[in-house]
Amino acid sequence: MKLLEDRILRDGKIGEGNVLKVDNFLNHCIDVGFLDELGKEFYRLFKDSGINKILTIEASGIGIACLTARHFGCPVVFAKKTKTNNIYADVYKGRVESYTHGTSYEIVVSKEFLLPGDRVLIIDDFLAKGSALMGLLGLIKDAGAEAVGAGIVIEKAYQPGGETVRKTGLRVESLARIKSMSRETGIVFCD
Amino acid sequence: MKLLEDRILRDGKIGEGNVLKVDNFLNHCIDVGFLDELGKEFYRLFKDSGINKILTIEASGIGIACLTARHFGCPVVFAKKTKTNNIYADVYKGRVESYTHGTSYEIVVSKEFLLPGDRVLIIDDFLAKGSALMGLLGLIKDAGAEAVGAGIVIEKAYQPGGETVRKTGLRVESLARIKSMSRETGIVFCD
Repeated sequence: MKLLEDRILRDGKIGEGNVLKVDNFLNHCIDVGFLDELGKEFYRLFKDSGINKILTIEASGIGIACLTARHFGCPVVFAKKTKTNNIYADVYKGRVESYTHGTSYEIVVSKEFLLPGDRVLIIDDFLAKGSALMGLLGLIKDAGAEAVGAGIVIEKAYQPGGETVRKTGLRVESLARIKSMSRETGIVFCD
Repeated sequence: MKLLEDRILRDGKIGEGNVLKVDNFLNHCIDVGFLDELGKEFYRLFKDSGINKILTIEASGIGIACLTARHFGCPVVFAKKTKTNNIYADVYKGRVESYTHGTSYEIVVSKEFLLPGDRVLIIDDFLAKGSALMGLLGLIKDAGAEAVGAGIVIEKAYQPGGETVRKTGLRVESLARIKSMSRETGIVFCD
């Protein structure tokens, strides 16, 4: 999506450890009008898939998920990263590795919000090694719901997550796919 | 706001420790169309205040903040609950007590996203003891920005947060104000 690639080139910064910082429009300061355009594009891509629920993961997926869900007219469920003591219903659980932070954490979704028969679109801001996406797929499977696809804002195509997830048969649509990235050479997108 | 009070009466549950659970439409499963209506109401209340930025706190504030910001045509900045190693710019910091979880945590906002001259509307899902709101007010003050008001979805008016915050002179608008709540007597709203 050219609109997004242009924005990444303009506003993205490559930080320590080759981390792509897009927190001035995507995941700390949220450009709501811009994310609404991305949501419209996810709708164009998945509008014929019978989606009735969007699943994401706190915290940085919530904004783009909500602004996408408006176009689908469906609710958003977000997986929580820690158990809280005010979820009393039973939960589906998974574990996600965070390579950026060098830790792992548990994700939970209350069983009442993922149901057999749900047709679920996963939305997330980044796809790199695929751990979050695989964790969310596990929750959907545990619920007996169907994962219809994943809409990703930025995929680091030089990392293995995209291939890992696509091998499961899931349709993954990434609005920008980065082929290579470094402070020296800048950001290069896949064709 | 009658629409919201009716929804709380219909879908809210009072859990252990007198916690109000509204996670089937507000903060775990998000009814995006409904929150869009709440956002429209915040816009009606604050549209003449010259707001150019909405500030909230992860994770449960992000959905309602984004769906409110659409009406204002302004960005959302969300305070993060832990320092992450991919925020490199300097940050404003505060500390928030979480009474629900019996802990406290640090909140941070990158200095580049709160600027002197910003006219900031705080949006959050709950107001109870006011710790999160006071923490966010501190960040705004540290930045030399102006807090124009706070838009709260549900205020527990029997807890002291609303009074504490209003005493600072801040305009606080809560769409539903709960006067009392218990499993025995149910939920009673302020007039």
